[in-house]
Amino acid sequence: MKALKIPEATVVRLSLYSRHLRQLINDGTLTVSSGEIAAGVGVSSAQVRKDLAYFGEFGTRGVGYNVQELHGHIVRILGLNREWNVVIVGVGKLGSALAVYKGFASRGFNIVGLMDVSEQRIGLSLGKLVIEPLTILEQRIREKSVKIGIITVPGSAAQEVADMMTAAGVSSILNFSPRVLKVPKRVILRNVDLSVNMEVLSFYLSRFESRQ
Amino acid sequence: MKALKIPEATVVRLSLYSRHLRQLINDGTLTVSSGEIAAGVGVSSAQVRKDLAYFGEFGTRGVGYNVQELHGHIVRILGLNREWNVVIVGVGKLGSALAVYKGFASRGFNIVGLMDVSEQRIGLSLGKLVIEPLTILEQRIREKSVKIGIITVPGSAAQEVADMMTAAGVSSILNFSPRVLKVPKRVILRNVDLSVNMEVLSFYLSRFESRQ
Repeated sequence: MKALKIPEATVVRLSLYSRHLRQLINDGTLTVSSGEIAAGVGVSSAQVRKDLAYFGEFGTRGVGYNVQELHGHIVRILGLNREWNVVIVGVGKLGSALAVYKGFASRGFNIVGLMDVSEQRIGLSLGKLVIEPLTILEQRIREKSVKIGIITVPGSAAQEVADMMTAAGVSSILNFSPRVLKVPKRVILRNVDLSVNMEVLSFYLSRFESRQ
Repeated sequence: MKALKIPEATVVRLSLYSRHLRQLINDGTLTVSSGEIAAGVGVSSAQVRKDLAYFGEFGTRGVGYNVQELHGHIVRILGLNREWNVVIVGVGKLGSALAVYKGFASRGFNIVGLMDVSEQRIGLSLGKLVIEPLTILEQRIREKSVKIGIITVPGSAAQEVADMMTAAGVSSILNFSPRVLKVPKRVILRNVDLSVNMEVLSFYLSRFESRQ
């Protein structure tokens, strides 16, 4: 990922800009300034301009950005102008929550497989899918050209699942397990730790309380 | 949050550094360089030094950081040297997953209340807690001095829940609903959108594919 040069923080912000622009489209807004985008997302307007500058010239000085056009650009930059097939391995509470998460389908992420090793879970329906045994993972990845794998198994099983996914051709993994995973260089790995969000809150909370 | 000056991205990285340092402690490592921390977390060593410099001088030039000491500093900076009581409102799939998420308790976040409006859910046990009606939210927040509220209700109910939380004295909210919430200035609000992680993957995937 480093070789691609665009900072990951910029990509995360592009994702936030695209949400804000979609809201503006829904509200019927036609043009927007970098300052207005910045205020809507909670960053500086210089940051907005710098992030967008990685990808070319979008706005008109003194006029701002055409909302529809800028949204379309960002959607293409983020690769959201197409659909991506996704499998989820580990259909416990978190895996189930992700399997029915509405934000995925609306942005082009199609969950096409749910796999687990638990006999109690295999065969159950969740949304439009039936939970399948882990042994079918490689076949599903190949036949559905799955590019994204989500790992929501316990840490002890995570590396094995990652190995199966990458062997079958998955090129990116979202890892919710606490385990640090080893993947081939060509595979994009993103680790999600839900307690990071809580720690950001406790940072600001304890600074706030120490001032009182 | 802006008035507190430390960039949120720095706080997020501190959280990642603390994880890496805990791992080093477990491995028995005594000292570490900024370059080693950087490699472990996936940022530049200049970034590590800059982030730490906000909070004072920690390392010794040419020797590096004492792992235990630096970990202790960061834990205190993040406010993780104490416990925080937390309520979760909305005990659907995502709320249930968070209610039993092991990463919370181990970092000092105690879930002390689970509330929902569904008659099917109220009275059910989840971990050590019983799901209670939303009407009891304000009482629980006051009697347990809850500082952090997690919102995992549908967007249509999210503002009402946020209002109830802040009226009862919650000072920070983690919002998993897609709704943009209005909260009083004194309240720290953090929005979590799980599809942002997917969009970062699709960004790198589409850049990678367009090169082939």
